[in-house]
Amino acid sequence: MEVSPVAQQGPAGLPWYVAGSQALGLACVVITGVWMGHYRGGYAWDGSSHEFNVHPLCMVLGLVFLYGDAILVYRVFRNESKRSIKILHAMLHLFALIVSIVGFVAVFDFHASSKIPDMYSLHSWCGMVTLVLFCVQWLMGLGFFLFPGASPWLRSWYLSLHVFFGLALFVLAVGTSLLGITEKLLFSIKSTYSTFAPEGVLANTLGLLLVGFGVLVGYIVTREDFRRPPHPEEEALSMHFKTLTEGESPISP
Amino acid sequence: MEVSPVAQQGPAGLPWYVAGSQALGLACVVITGVWMGHYRGGYAWDGSSHEFNVHPLCMVLGLVFLYGDAILVYRVFRNESKRSIKILHAMLHLFALIVSIVGFVAVFDFHASSKIPDMYSLHSWCGMVTLVLFCVQWLMGLGFFLFPGASPWLRSWYLSLHVFFGLALFVLAVGTSLLGITEKLLFSIKSTYSTFAPEGVLANTLGLLLVGFGVLVGYIVTREDFRRPPHPEEEALSMHFKTLTEGESPISP
Repeated sequence: MEVSPVAQQGPAGLPWYVAGSQALGLACVVITGVWMGHYRGGYAWDGSSHEFNVHPLCMVLGLVFLYGDAILVYRVFRNESKRSIKILHAMLHLFALIVSIVGFVAVFDFHASSKIPDMYSLHSWCGMVTLVLFCVQWLMGLGFFLFPGASPWLRSWYLSLHVFFGLALFVLAVGTSLLGITEKLLFSIKSTYSTFAPEGVLANTLGLLLVGFGVLVGYIVTREDFRRPPHPEEEALSMHFKTLTEGESPISP
Repeated sequence: MEVSPVAQQGPAGLPWYVAGSQALGLACVVITGVWMGHYRGGYAWDGSSHEFNVHPLCMVLGLVFLYGDAILVYRVFRNESKRSIKILHAMLHLFALIVSIVGFVAVFDFHASSKIPDMYSLHSWCGMVTLVLFCVQWLMGLGFFLFPGASPWLRSWYLSLHVFFGLALFVLAVGTSLLGITEKLLFSIKSTYSTFAPEGVLANTLGLLLVGFGVLVGYIVTREDFRRPPHPEEEALSMHFKTLTEGESPISP
């Protein structure tokens, strides 16, 4: 069985969409960095508002950009073995998780130093739900797809749930970022926000770019002809599994 | 060709998911109504903050609940003709659009009376993008699917874009509602929000219920076995079209 040119090179247009997503995602990280670095006084780890500034940067880098890229690996690396891509997917998600946890620690530490109550806002509720479910999703993915215990039937049953909830949590992470932007602006520049202060316009633009990144990642992973076609050895394995479960001949068409 | 029992009754579980989505959606509308009615002084159309209160209620009713239900009609009405469902889908969306426009007028009218600048916040930017693209999406849907001009090839090409961007705009509407909740709380109860004031807890709960409604609607419309199967007469039409375009015999298996 030969791999078709489309399977090898990927469908036309896909590289442009992926490049666009990377441009948008990097722009989000850079603008968050500039916002916190230039307008909010830069970064530190001393319990001050400069420690708070680590929070947005880590969340946009971890739970949005790296999370989005971890989702995209199945579309980008089309000719690697499935197992290699699974490991890359899991590693990128783990990296996203570690960066996000640093971001969480930064904000809780800042709250503790400044005697600000925790977990009262909608942003904090959505953020906590996202991070906890993200950990659950990562562990479930590890257990079902990388550990050898799960049967092919169980893997196939969980796959659609993993894909749906993975994308839903990514969207929730983007939405939670927008809530964080709104909260930060109303805490910091409430009096000048309505006069279109440059900081407000920059942060609003960041919000729209985050939406753009989310929409583009969602489009790339859900577009039917962008899906990774099964490779010959996976086809053979899948045929073999079909034979075992349904009694069909592996050489039948 | 006989319609299978699954096609007639729908797959097991679907009615429960739909009932759950309706319970969540109605809870969102009722809680928004109670929040604005009980905590924010009720409704009026006099340029006061009571006119503002019409805005959240209309947006949650129109751009979230009715929009979500308009998406669900293809899963709920499985045995009606495709054309009837299309018309119901378009009518529900039109109703959602009218209710949303009333909500938009309410907030612009309140801003004008109270000399509050328009369109400076991330919430307003996201809301305007959502409403404008929703109008474009509605008109494109009307032109491609209800007017007779578009060729089957063009309809089929546009369908996947219509479905993706329809769902993306619905998610953006839910996200914009969460931004609105955060903005309203930080404008109205900033000093007591961090003490877990009942109004804040109610509004945060509304936010999580909106997320739940969005996730459930997204799950129902993307789950493969919940899709509406093609009906015999549509199959025949589709076969006829295939014959015309590909020269295949309509009676071939």
